Amino acid sequence: MSVTFASGFAVAIGEAGIRDSGGPDLVIIASDRPAAVAATLTTNRVRAAPVLLVEEALGARGSVRAIVVNAGCANAGTGPGGLDDARAVVAATAAHLGCTPAEVLPASTGLIGSRLPVDAMLAAIPGLDLRRTAEAGSEAARAIMTTDTRPKERAATTQLADGREVRIGGMAKGAGMIHPQMATMLAFLTTDGPVAAGTLAELLRATVDRTFNQVTIDGDTSTNDAVIVLANGAAGGPPIESGPDRDAFADALETVCRELAIAIATDGEGAQHLIEVRVTGAADGAAARAVARTVAGSSLVKTAVHGADPNWGRIAAAAGRSGVAFDPDRLRICIGEVPVFDGAPLAFDEAPAAAALREPTVVLALDLGGGDGSGTAWGCDLTAEYVAINSEYTT
Amino acid sequence: MSVTFASGFAVAIGEAGIRDSGGPDLVIIASDRPAAVAATLTTNRVRAAPVLLVEEALGARGSVRAIVVNAGCANAGTGPGGLDDARAVVAATAAHLGCTPAEVLPASTGLIGSRLPVDAMLAAIPGLDLRRTAEAGSEAARAIMTTDTRPKERAATTQLADGREVRIGGMAKGAGMIHPQMATMLAFLTTDGPVAAGTLAELLRATVDRTFNQVTIDGDTSTNDAVIVLANGAAGGPPIESGPDRDAFADALETVCRELAIAIATDGEGAQHLIEVRVTGAADGAAARAVARTVAGSSLVKTAVHGADPNWGRIAAAAGRSGVAFDPDRLRICIGEVPVFDGAPLAFDEAPAAAALREPTVVLALDLGGGDGSGTAWGCDLTAEYVAINSEYTT
Repeated sequence: MSVTFASGFAVAIGEAGIRDSGGPDLVIIASDRPAAVAATLTTNRVRAAPVLLVEEALGARGSVRAIVVNAGCANAGTGPGGLDDARAVVAATAAHLGCTPAEVLPASTGLIGSRLPVDAMLAAIPGLDLRRTAEAGSEAARAIMTTDTRPKERAATTQLADGREVRIGGMAKGAGMIHPQMATMLAFLTTDGPVAAGTLAELLRATVDRTFNQVTIDGDTSTNDAVIVLANGAAGGPPIESGPDRDAFADALETVCRELAIAIATDGEGAQHLIEVRVTGAADGAAARAVARTVAGSSLVKTAVHGADPNWGRIAAAAGRSGVAFDPDRLRICIGEVPVFDGAPLAFDEAPAAAALREPTVVLALDLGGGDGSGTAWGCDLTAEYVAINSEYTT
Repeated sequence: MSVTFASGFAVAIGEAGIRDSGGPDLVIIASDRPAAVAATLTTNRVRAAPVLLVEEALGARGSVRAIVVNAGCANAGTGPGGLDDARAVVAATAAHLGCTPAEVLPASTGLIGSRLPVDAMLAAIPGLDLRRTAEAGSEAARAIMTTDTRPKERAATTQLADGREVRIGGMAKGAGMIHPQMATMLAFLTTDGPVAAGTLAELLRATVDRTFNQVTIDGDTSTNDAVIVLANGAAGGPPIESGPDRDAFADALETVCRELAIAIATDGEGAQHLIEVRVTGAADGAAARAVARTVAGSSLVKTAVHGADPNWGRIAAAAGRSGVAFDPDRLRICIGEVPVFDGAPLAFDEAPAAAALREPTVVLALDLGGGDGSGTAWGCDLTAEYVAINSEYTT
């Protein structure tokens, strides 16, 4: 139930020896017809070559036929040579698919600072076969993993007012160097809905702000973050632009993005718990999301969850440094279902609060007591395994 | 060589059973004459009761005679009752010293959310004796520690144009919940220089931005951060306001603050290495400091240092998300003395770079290639011990 779920999309998977550990490391996602495209890209000043090329392609406002993705090498910090490498891979993919290079977008993930093994990739691409099965989609989700322990794929179907069924499928990767303020990580979404590029961009921006940008694992923003959605219109019918159809499509898009985002946080490097921070009572949604993100990203909150310590002081202190104005005297905090703070410390039974912190998904709820804005963020606990993984692995 | 170094300052140290582990936990810093005061306070929205009272006192623009400090309880998140508690401790201290409550500032550090044991503190205060020795100053620095493993005290002497000698002494505490964008942690500075409050505030603000605000341990901003400086003029002579005397005093103040700030980073929870990030070639000092702070605070840089992995990609990625504009093609990075990146990856020998990462002080240097601005930040490596300390300790 990955990118092959929507009609008219296929994947090809290959092995080009890009990653030292071997295995599939090259994926082409292809549409059988021109697709509208929208993307959100990293705001990091140091941007990988493929990110620069995607930005260039979006500026040209053309349609897209394919995305070529590799794991094992980020093609970041590689200078002009890295741009040439990405262009060569794009050209080979276009030649293989019978489209123009302008219709192919590149994406890379893996080690920063090493060059792509272009010769091996150009040798592999002509032999890649396109497959449309759900199984192929799952294999693709697995081929783009780096330190991920699980593939991340989700899909949703929505019905439009005239009865048409529109499908959205997606896959994502990411387990470290993950923090919002940007598009987050690699995620690829495909839909057969007939959505024009402008509408697609509007919907993606709003959705990413509520989903991928609300995930944090370690506060580090990648050089390669990209969320790309292709809409090929294979579902047929008039374009989705406004009204109930737009809302239905937006809901389905957000569902897929949210579930992929949660899958990323759950698979955070060394993580044993997903932390879901729900904020209500904020002036608006953006304020609520900012507070939620800061709490989810706090090293002290993350270690408290790891230690099953119902330490609301760390939650309050993290909320207080989020940059969002609120009245601490009206702040309320719950750990799981247990109220622990209401403008002042509450007497509470530690056992159920500690038990809530031992659940696979730990829910922390804050009410700022100041408005109708709400928002959620997702993170994970900070463990000795995170330190071990990142002391020993060269990103 | 702590707060008793400057003429006319004394400390009194007591034990009021505020911390579970026992030992001295109550310190009064007193000036034998009225002192000008300046302070920088946490920007956290959740502010401890003593921080609110210091802000109130600064607003009144009066002179100060003493600071009463306790460890073991932050008196934060304690509501109106916490304010009453702090006022009671201030009143008892004023009565003991024979000054008015408006001349006494409170400060607290320790557990968030628990109330001060006011009765025990009021019982202890009348028995406290003021001492002027260097030894007493050192004992005071030790009495305000929480998870600190070492007391932090520094002092400097500067000579003015007319031959007068001015002394500045200070002490600080802090090992976790440490991150800039504010005044950082508890630090107390005393000077016998005749400096008026306005000048003192200007100098402190600029100094704190280059010293305490450039330290990060875990990205978490405390509810209790406060740097307070008292200037009692015991050195005599005309006020220090401008010209070479102001510069000499500012240099000495910055030296003490910088050394205390470095001592905090060195003593970061679980830390094995001090990380010093030096940034040059920025548009201005503020931009350089922002880049330095972001690199020093990156979990991935911190774990790379811990693993002695010369992973410049993480350094470049952290610089890129600092919010500061620069041209990645002009970026240069050195690990210790080893150049590793110059717009593109450099071929370098891993052994000396890894050796530089095993030094007690690890120096990472970035040149942004874009201006004359420079700045430094200090952090520490991220270790499994940090996780253990914060999974097991209730702040």
